[in-house]
Amino acid sequence: MVKKLRKKDIRVPLTVPESVKKEYISNYLELTKKTGNVMIFAGDQKIEHMNDDFFGEGIAKEDASPEHLFNIASKGKICAFATQLGLIARYGMDYKKVPYIVKINSKTHLVKSRDPISKALVTVRDVVNFKENSGLNILGVGYTIYPGSEYEHIMFEEASKVILEAHRHGLIAIIWSYPRGKNVKDEKDPHLIAGAAGIACCLGADFVKVNYPHCENAAERFKEAVLAAGRTGVLCAGGKSVDPEIFLKRIWEQINISGARGNATGRNIHQKPLDQAVRMCNAIYAITIEGKSVEEALKIYYGDKK
Amino acid sequence: MVKKLRKKDIRVPLTVPESVKKEYISNYLELTKKTGNVMIFAGDQKIEHMNDDFFGEGIAKEDASPEHLFNIASKGKICAFATQLGLIARYGMDYKKVPYIVKINSKTHLVKSRDPISKALVTVRDVVNFKENSGLNILGVGYTIYPGSEYEHIMFEEASKVILEAHRHGLIAIIWSYPRGKNVKDEKDPHLIAGAAGIACCLGADFVKVNYPHCENAAERFKEAVLAAGRTGVLCAGGKSVDPEIFLKRIWEQINISGARGNATGRNIHQKPLDQAVRMCNAIYAITIEGKSVEEALKIYYGDKK
Amino acid sequence: MVKKLRKKDIRVPLTVPESVKKEYISNYLELTKKTGNVMIFAGDQKIEHMNDDFFGEGIAKEDASPEHLFNIASKGKICAFATQLGLIARYGMDYKKVPYIVKINSKTHLVKSRDPISKALVTVRDVVNFKENSGLNILGVGYTIYPGSEYEHIMFEEASKVILEAHRHGLIAIIWSYPRGKNVKDEKDPHLIAGAAGIACCLGADFVKVNYPHCENAAERFKEAVLAAGRTGVLCAGGKSVDPEIFLKRIWEQINISGARGNATGRNIHQKPLDQAVRMCNAIYAITIEGKSVEEALKIYYGDKK
Amino acid sequence: MVKKLRKKDIRVPLTVPESVKKEYISNYLELTKKTGNVMIFAGDQKIEHMNDDFFGEGIAKEDASPEHLFNIASKGKICAFATQLGLIARYGMDYKKVPYIVKINSKTHLVKSRDPISKALVTVRDVVNFKENSGLNILGVGYTIYPGSEYEHIMFEEASKVILEAHRHGLIAIIWSYPRGKNVKDEKDPHLIAGAAGIACCLGADFVKVNYPHCENAAERFKEAVLAAGRTGVLCAGGKSVDPEIFLKRIWEQINISGARGNATGRNIHQKPLDQAVRMCNAIYAITIEGKSVEEALKIYYGDKK
Amino acid sequence: MVKKLRKKDIRVPLTVPESVKKEYISNYLELTKKTGNVMIFAGDQKIEHMNDDFFGEGIAKEDASPEHLFNIASKGKICAFATQLGLIARYGMDYKKVPYIVKINSKTHLVKSRDPISKALVTVRDVVNFKENSGLNILGVGYTIYPGSEYEHIMFEEASKVILEAHRHGLIAIIWSYPRGKNVKDEKDPHLIAGAAGIACCLGADFVKVNYPHCENAAERFKEAVLAAGRTGVLCAGGKSVDPEIFLKRIWEQINISGARGNATGRNIHQKPLDQAVRMCNAIYAITIEGKSVEEALKIYYGDKK
Repeated sequence: MVKKLRKKDIRVPLTVPESVKKEYISNYLELTKKTGNVMIFAGDQKIEHMNDDFFGEGIAKEDASPEHLFNIASKGKICAFATQLGLIARYGMDYKKVPYIVKINSKTHLVKSRDPISKALVTVRDVVNFKENSGLNILGVGYTIYPGSEYEHIMFEEASKVILEAHRHGLIAIIWSYPRGKNVKDEKDPHLIAGAAGIACCLGADFVKVNYPHCENAAERFKEAVLAAGRTGVLCAGGKSVDPEIFLKRIWEQINISGARGNATGRNIHQKPLDQAVRMCNAIYAITIEGKSVEEALKIYYGDKK
Repeated sequence: MVKKLRKKDIRVPLTVPESVKKEYISNYLELTKKTGNVMIFAGDQKIEHMNDDFFGEGIAKEDASPEHLFNIASKGKICAFATQLGLIARYGMDYKKVPYIVKINSKTHLVKSRDPISKALVTVRDVVNFKENSGLNILGVGYTIYPGSEYEHIMFEEASKVILEAHRHGLIAIIWSYPRGKNVKDEKDPHLIAGAAGIACCLGADFVKVNYPHCENAAERFKEAVLAAGRTGVLCAGGKSVDPEIFLKRIWEQINISGARGNATGRNIHQKPLDQAVRMCNAIYAITIEGKSVEEALKIYYGDKK
Repeated sequence: MVKKLRKKDIRVPLTVPESVKKEYISNYLELTKKTGNVMIFAGDQKIEHMNDDFFGEGIAKEDASPEHLFNIASKGKICAFATQLGLIARYGMDYKKVPYIVKINSKTHLVKSRDPISKALVTVRDVVNFKENSGLNILGVGYTIYPGSEYEHIMFEEASKVILEAHRHGLIAIIWSYPRGKNVKDEKDPHLIAGAAGIACCLGADFVKVNYPHCENAAERFKEAVLAAGRTGVLCAGGKSVDPEIFLKRIWEQINISGARGNATGRNIHQKPLDQAVRMCNAIYAITIEGKSVEEALKIYYGDKK
Repeated sequence: MVKKLRKKDIRVPLTVPESVKKEYISNYLELTKKTGNVMIFAGDQKIEHMNDDFFGEGIAKEDASPEHLFNIASKGKICAFATQLGLIARYGMDYKKVPYIVKINSKTHLVKSRDPISKALVTVRDVVNFKENSGLNILGVGYTIYPGSEYEHIMFEEASKVILEAHRHGLIAIIWSYPRGKNVKDEKDPHLIAGAAGIACCLGADFVKVNYPHCENAAERFKEAVLAAGRTGVLCAGGKSVDPEIFLKRIWEQINISGARGNATGRNIHQKPLDQAVRMCNAIYAITIEGKSVEEALKIYYGDKK
Repeated sequence: MVKKLRKKDIRVPLTVPESVKKEYISNYLELTKKTGNVMIFAGDQKIEHMNDDFFGEGIAKEDASPEHLFNIASKGKICAFATQLGLIARYGMDYKKVPYIVKINSKTHLVKSRDPISKALVTVRDVVNFKENSGLNILGVGYTIYPGSEYEHIMFEEASKVILEAHRHGLIAIIWSYPRGKNVKDEKDPHLIAGAAGIACCLGADFVKVNYPHCENAAERFKEAVLAAGRTGVLCAGGKSVDPEIFLKRIWEQINISGARGNATGRNIHQKPLDQAVRMCNAIYAITIEGKSVEEALKIYYGDKK
C-alpha cells in the first residue's frame, strides 16, 4: 500500500515565504495525490519535436490535433498535464478540471549546428497572472536545463530564478535536466544522469525529470541519481513509444527498485488512440500513485480491469 | 454560403483579461468579417525584401512608391493591411479607414552568412500608445519566428511576450512561422510546415501564417498543418507573383480542401497596377470571406463582375 | 523659386503626440528653412573615420582641431550641424546659435574583421535633458543603420526606438542608411540604395541619408530611391572631397533631377580652410534651400557673389 | 596562541554603510571565530563537478546523498559551510545552527569547448530575503571568477556588484579566483595565483580563495599571493583528496609560512565517512583557528584526541 | 611660470547641470591644482597586468603589497591616485587625504585569443554613493576604451554613459583610449593616437589618456593628438619603467613641445622603493604643475633639492 502524506509531513523549502506555505502544501499534496509521488502527462513536444511526435506511421490519427492531449488529460488518471501556457490558453476553457504544470521554456529539435539553448517563453509572474485570470488549476511550473551545453549558464541562471519565483508564489517547481551538447558523450550514462539530478537539487527544484539510463542493470544503477537528488524527487522521462509491458515494467522498477518518485510520460500515452491512451494513463497512475504491480497495471491497460 | 459568427461563438483565449474581452471579440469579428476567416494584405516587404519586390521587370511602375500599398488597402476589399508601424505613421492620416495589423519585427533578406534573426522594432505597448494617439483602426499585431534558426530561442521568447501583451490589450496576435537556416533542408516540406504551425499554437497565437507546401497533392498534405495548429487559424503566405488563375485556385483549395482559415498576400497584389491590384484583393476576399468559387473570383479579377 | 511651407503644409507623423506637434512643426520648419529641403553639415567623422578626415595631405591645417567644425557651422549657411553630443557639450557654449542634430551612434572604421555595428552613445532622453540643460538649439537626432550587416537587427531595433522617442519629444529623426558587410557586394548599387531608403521609411524616419549611386546615369537611377523612401525625405551623403564644380553639379542633380530633398556634407566642407569652407556651405545651401543653379552656386563658392 | 580580535580591530571596508557596520563586524567575528582566520567547508561541487566528487571508487558511500554534507557541517568544527542557496533551502530547516556562505554562481566541468563562464544563480537581494525568510545563519556570499577566460569581463562585473551589494547588507564577500581558459598555460603557477589574488583585492573582496601552487618551495612562493592580496585574506582551495598528513601539513604551512588566512576544503572532508569527515574538519579547524601544530591536528584526525 | 586658473576660467561642459557646476569647478580646480594640467598616479595595474608589474626582477620588494601604492599616493605630490573602487574601499580609511580617481573598468592582459573588452565594475552611481558613504576625496572617474576592438561599440556606449553620469554629479571624467585588437597594426602610430584622442573628445571626456607615439620626432608628431582632442586635455601614459632622465625629459616635451596637459604614470613610480617613488612623483609634478625644467626635476628626483 501507498503512504498517505499529511500537511505536516511536507518539508516546505525555505524559499517559500510563510504567507504562501499553505498554498505550496496544498499544491504539493494535490500534485502528488498525497503520496509524494507524481505521474505527469508531458505534452510539450509540439515545440520540442514539432510534428514528429504527432503525425506519421505508428501514431494514432487523432494525435494530429492538440485537442487529443486535452481529451486524454481530462479523461485519464494523471497528477498533472505539463504543456506551454499558450496552448493551455486556447483549450483550458473547455478543460477546466485538468491540473496543469506550465512548461516555461521550449525549443525545437531542428537546431543541431550549435549546443542546445532554451529560453523562458513566459515568466512565473505571467503564470501567476494567468492562473488568477483564467481560474485554471495550475499547480506548478517546469523548466528544462541542458548541463554540458555551451549555454548551460544561461539556463542555470534562468532556472534558478524560475524556481525562486515559483516558490515565492507557492507553486511547485520541476526541472527537466538533460546533459546535452558537443561536450556530452553519452547522455544516458547513469553517472552523468546522477550529476544532472544533483544540479536540480542544488537549484532548489521540488522534482527533477531525467532520462532513465541505457545500460545493464539500469534500475540498480539509477539509484545513484535518486541519492544524488537528495530531497528533490526524481521523475523519469518516458522516451519513445515502446511495448506497453516493457514500458510499465520499467516504470515499476524505477519507483520500486531505484527509488524514483514518479514519471513524466508523453509519447507512450498520446501516440495511442484516446481509449488506449486513457488506459495507459490509468496503468501508469496505478503503479506510481496507487502502488499497484506491473500485472495489475497491465490489466488496466488491456482493459480487463478498471 | 459562409457562416456568420456571433460574439458568443468566439472562444476568447484565457490570456485575454476579462476587462478587454469585449475589445478582443470586437477586433476578432472585425478582422474576420464575422466569418472566422482572414484575408490579409501583407506589406512588410520594404524591409524584408528591400526594393526587390517593388521595382523591376514585371512590377507595376506605381509599386515603386509606398503610397501604392495604401491606395490598394483603402480601395480593395481586405480584412487588414499588415505593415510596419513607422510606415503607417507616415501615411495613416490619409488612410484612416484602413484596418491595420502592425508588423512588429522585420529583417532584410541580405544577410545570408548566418541564420535568420528578426527583432521587435516596437513593443506592443508602443502599438497601443500609437493606436490611442492616432485614432487608427489597429486590430492586431504580427511577429515572425524562424524555427530551426540558431536564434529561434530569441524569437520564440519575444513572440511569446508579444502574444501575451497583445492579448492583455485585446489585440489579435498573428505569428509568421517560417522554418529557416542552416539546419532546415526543405522549408516547403508539409510535415515541417505542420510543425511550424504547431509552434505558433503553443505560443498562443490567434493565427499563424505559414508557407504552402511545394509537393504533389499539396492541398491534401497541408491538412496536417491545419490539424497541428489546433484552434490557431492557419493563413497561407502568398509567395512570388504567379498566374492569377493558379493563384486563386490555390487559395480556394487551401480553404476548401485543407481547411486553412485564410491568407496573407503581398506581391500577388501590389506588384500589379492599382486597378488590377484592387480587383485581385476583391477576388481573394470573395473566396476567403464570401465563400465564392474560383470561377466567380476570376470574373471579379478580370472585371466581368464586381 | 523655392516653395515656402506653412505650418499646415507639414504632414506630422502619427507617432508625434498632440502635445508636441507644435514643437515638431517648429523644428521641421526651422530645419528645412520652410522649404522641406535640408542642407546638413555633417561632422561625426572624428569617431567614424578618426583623424583620417582631419589631418593629412590635401586637408586644411585648421581642420586638425574640432573647433574648425564649429567655426564653419556658425559662419556658413547651413540647416543644421550634425555631430556627437559629447563634442557639442564642449563647444556649444561658444556657438549657441548653431542649429544642431545630435548624432546618436558612431563607430570607428578600424574594425574590418566583422560586420559593422554601431550602438547608441546616448538616449533620446539624454538629448532632451541636454537640450533643456544647455539651452542649445537642437532640432533633431541622427542614427546610422547598416542593412545587410550581421548585426542589422540590433541597429534596426535601436533605430526604431530612437525615432519613436524623438517623435515623442517633437524632435526630427534622421536615419543614415548604409548597406554594408560581408553580404553586401556593391554598396553604391542604385537598387540597393533604394532598398536602404525604403527601410528608413518603414522605421518612420523623417529623413534618410544614403549614398549616391556610382553608375552611369546616376541622377536618373537615383529616382528609385526617392520613390522608395515615400514621404521620408532623401538626403545624399557627400563622400570624399572632390572638385567643387563636380560636387555642386551632383548636388543640383540630386535635387532637381532625382527629387532628393537635400544633402549632408562633411569632408567637402571641413577639409577646406575656413573661408572656403564657409563659401562651400553657402553654395550648397544656395542650391538646396534657395533654388539656385550650379553656376550661381559656383560663383558663391568662388567668392564672386555672396 | 591565536590572537583574539575585538570589534574595534576590524577594518570595515568603506563600501559597508554606517547602518550595517555592526552587522558586518558581527558576521566577520563569527566567520573568523574572532581570529581573522577562516576554515570553510566547501560544498558547491554538486554543480561544479556533478556527481564525480560524490560517488565512485575511494569515496564514502554516504557521500552519495547531499545530506552527508549537512551532517558534517552540523557535527564538525567549521567556520561556515559554503553551498548553493537551492540546496540550503531544502535542508536548512533541519540544520539551523550551521553558519552558511551562499555560493552565488556555479557551472559544470563538462563544458570544455569554450572558456569557462559562471553566472549568478541568485542575487544578493535574494540571499538577504532568504536569510530573513528562513532565519538561517547566513554570514556571507561566495562568487567564482575565472581570470584569463574570454568571459572574464562578465564575471568581473558580476563579482564586483555582488561584493558591493553584499557589503551594503553587512555580509562578508568571498571570491573564488581561478585563472583558467585557453589563454592560461599553468593555473598553478605561483605568480599567476598572486595575480588572481590581487584581482579579488581590487574588486573589494573580504577573502579570496585561490589554488595553492604546484611547484618547488610552494609555501615560500605562495607568499607572493598573500602580499598581492593586501588586506583581502587569502584562503587555500583544498583540491583533490590526498593523504591526511600531507594535507594537514600543507594547510599548516599555508598559514604559518605563507601567511594565508585559512582554507576552503571540500573533497578532503566529504569524501570520507561521517566520523572521519568530522574529525578532518576538527583537525583543519585546530590548525586554522586554534593555532595547533600538525602533530596535534593529526591526533585529532586519527581520534587520539578531541 | 604656470598659469593660475580662476573659477571663471573653467569652461564647464554643457552636460554638467547648473546645480552641480560649482562642484564640477571645484573638482576641476583641485584636480588640476588650478593649472589646467594634471599629474595622475595610475594604479589600476593589479587587474590590468595582474602581478607582473608588482613582483619580479627590477621591481622594489615593497611593491608586492598594494599598500605601497597608498603610501606613495599619500606622501608624494600628485593630483590624484587612480585605482579601482574595491581597492580604495579597503585602504581609504587610512589614506583619507589622498585625492582619488575611481577607475571604473578593468580587464587582465591574459586574454589574447580575442579582441580586448573591459566592462564597468561599478556604476557612477556606485561611486557617488561610495564618496558620500566614505567621505573620501573622490574627484572623478576613469574608463578605458579600445578603439578598433571588435567590442569597441560596447565600450563606447558604456564610456559615453559614464561621462554623462559623471558630469551629472559634478565629477571629472577621464578616458583611457588605446587602439587595440586584430584590426590595429601599430598602436603607437601618432596618427592613430590622434584618432583615439579625438574619439574621447566626441564622447565628451574632460581628459584623455593616450599612449605617446613611438617614432622619430615624437614630440612634434604628438601635436596632432593634442589638436585632435580639442578642448579635451591630453594626458600621456607612462608605460614601462625607463631611465628617469629619459622619462622626465619625455614628460617635459609632451607638455612643453606637444601641448599635452599632463600624464598618468604607474610603473615608473611604484616599481621604485617608497622614497624614490615619492621623489619621482615630486619630479613629475614639478614639470607638470609647477612648470619646472627637466634639470630641476632631475634634482628633485635625485634628492638634491626638494
